[in-house]
Amino acid sequence: MNLKERDGKFQKAFDKETKKIDDRLSQLLKGKQPKSLYDPCDYVLKSGGKHLRGYLVLLSTKVVGGKYSQAYNAALSVEILHSFTLVHDDIMDNADKRRGMPALHVKYDVNTAILAGDSLIAVAYKNLLKDCKVNTVSILNTFNQSVIDVCEGQSLDKEFEERLDVTIPEYIEMIEKKTGALIQMCCSIGGQIGNGNKEQINALKKYGKNLGLAFQLKDDLLDIVGNTKHFGKNVGGDLVEGKKTYMLLKALELANKKDKIELNKIIRNSGIKRAEIDKYKKLYLKYDIFDIASREIKQYTDRAINALKVLPDSIEKERLIWLAQLLIKRKK
Amino acid sequence: MNLKERDGKFQKAFDKETKKIDDRLSQLLKGKQPKSLYDPCDYVLKSGGKHLRGYLVLLSTKVVGGKYSQAYNAALSVEILHSFTLVHDDIMDNADKRRGMPALHVKYDVNTAILAGDSLIAVAYKNLLKDCKVNTVSILNTFNQSVIDVCEGQSLDKEFEERLDVTIPEYIEMIEKKTGALIQMCCSIGGQIGNGNKEQINALKKYGKNLGLAFQLKDDLLDIVGNTKHFGKNVGGDLVEGKKTYMLLKALELANKKDKIELNKIIRNSGIKRAEIDKYKKLYLKYDIFDIASREIKQYTDRAINALKVLPDSIEKERLIWLAQLLIKRKK
Repeated sequence: MNLKERDGKFQKAFDKETKKIDDRLSQLLKGKQPKSLYDPCDYVLKSGGKHLRGYLVLLSTKVVGGKYSQAYNAALSVEILHSFTLVHDDIMDNADKRRGMPALHVKYDVNTAILAGDSLIAVAYKNLLKDCKVNTVSILNTFNQSVIDVCEGQSLDKEFEERLDVTIPEYIEMIEKKTGALIQMCCSIGGQIGNGNKEQINALKKYGKNLGLAFQLKDDLLDIVGNTKHFGKNVGGDLVEGKKTYMLLKALELANKKDKIELNKIIRNSGIKRAEIDKYKKLYLKYDIFDIASREIKQYTDRAINALKVLPDSIEKERLIWLAQLLIKRKK
Repeated sequence: MNLKERDGKFQKAFDKETKKIDDRLSQLLKGKQPKSLYDPCDYVLKSGGKHLRGYLVLLSTKVVGGKYSQAYNAALSVEILHSFTLVHDDIMDNADKRRGMPALHVKYDVNTAILAGDSLIAVAYKNLLKDCKVNTVSILNTFNQSVIDVCEGQSLDKEFEERLDVTIPEYIEMIEKKTGALIQMCCSIGGQIGNGNKEQINALKKYGKNLGLAFQLKDDLLDIVGNTKHFGKNVGGDLVEGKKTYMLLKALELANKKDKIELNKIIRNSGIKRAEIDKYKKLYLKYDIFDIASREIKQYTDRAINALKVLPDSIEKERLIWLAQLLIKRKK
């Protein structure tokens, strides 16, 4: 089987499993009472998404010798938890849209979205508990710590909006918590549900953490070099919002005095006009920022893949490697 | 020892244990990073409260043969969870004050309060997990179900604000979830941490549920017959806000046609003017509403106390009975 055939086969398996997750999520709260609470929750759980996190739970369980069937509720649980973070983040970020649809607090109202988010946390725990047959306290601590990390990451993100002196290590720490922690958790609890040994769990955690970082940096990169049609949002949005991304911070580090003044305007004015996007894109190009970011993404991906070495060879291990490679190549 | 001496002694023990809980809560998140997240959480955990819920966990653990020391983190955990509900409820209810201090979303802002509330949920689980040595999955399911119930209760409460036809059974179901579920959970997890048998856990749950209902109805009653100085908020606030309390619903049930029209104004106009409070108080008196509510409270309290019969006699059982009696007698 050549690489292209393998990729096609793996993509098919991914689509099949994540479709199952999607179907289960769509059924989970359908018609539950009180409607004022569960209709909004249902709206969120039906809003799609790649379900990468749930799939990571399944693969991580199987790669250490467990079965998908042991971890199906846990896979739903991480997707539900992820949904909660999106609902509350969208309120805080004043975001109108999510996956092309009105955000929950726009579709309903802020109060409804707060409460729906809260209950999604509990629904997530409820589902996770169904798959806790071994390592229960440890699985729950891992899951719970990721909730704490996500909150800390979101808080740092909000803090950075107000600060003028954010460093690259601080930015990395923030995305490690805001995005990496949840992905790392998926791999860790999958491994624990499958009753993997300590070395295997640590390998999966390392894989997840680096995958999460690569994933977020790739998102940042796609925000500016992505194709609007593919990416599904307006290119350059982070610049318009004045977000301190890896690329902006790197450009500030490398730029000469004159260019630094230009770049600092993004921060000081809390964003730029749409018409200025091209000007800043050229500035990024001048300092090779897109190549530097791509190399950084490649490095995290390599670290993720290398971490898997200690795991026994299996089709699931290959799938985990494929997933990491896919994330680098993706155009949206 | 006469009853007055006993009451004094029990009150002292209550004060001593809840002071310990208060001290631990005050230290829990002090100085933690990121400050933008934990300073607001710390503000909430330091804002006082009776810590009745934490004390119920301790008593319930000991009454089935366990020790306070087995359940201390769990006692903190229920207080932290309770704090989360207050923080998010205050946003939703647009409440400016909590325990005489600015509500968190007023002291900081709504986004900060949403995120602080979210992380308090996870901090609560983290502490609870420390005391999960036996019955882990069951304890966590009980805890988690109470989060779901509280969200459902809050959602029903908000739903009732918009509805004109709320019945007394619906109101009781709402407060069972919004207030009763958390108190019932405290008693249940205490009993499970102490490794009580099924009959004992059920007795504790029944005690907690009825105590919670008595507690909420007493709150409703104090809102209108309480002394402002004692009660700490303005008397008649529920009437001013047009809240559909047990008393209003009961009055609507008993009133003649003419009085019913008057009472319905409270609902239709979403509340009354302060100057009208006395008029409605007289209307309540005309239909014996305060006596009826008091009898109802007494009934729930009796059910709570009766449920304890199956538990072995002990000082903790006496303390649980005393607590229930105290809640009836309280003036604030």
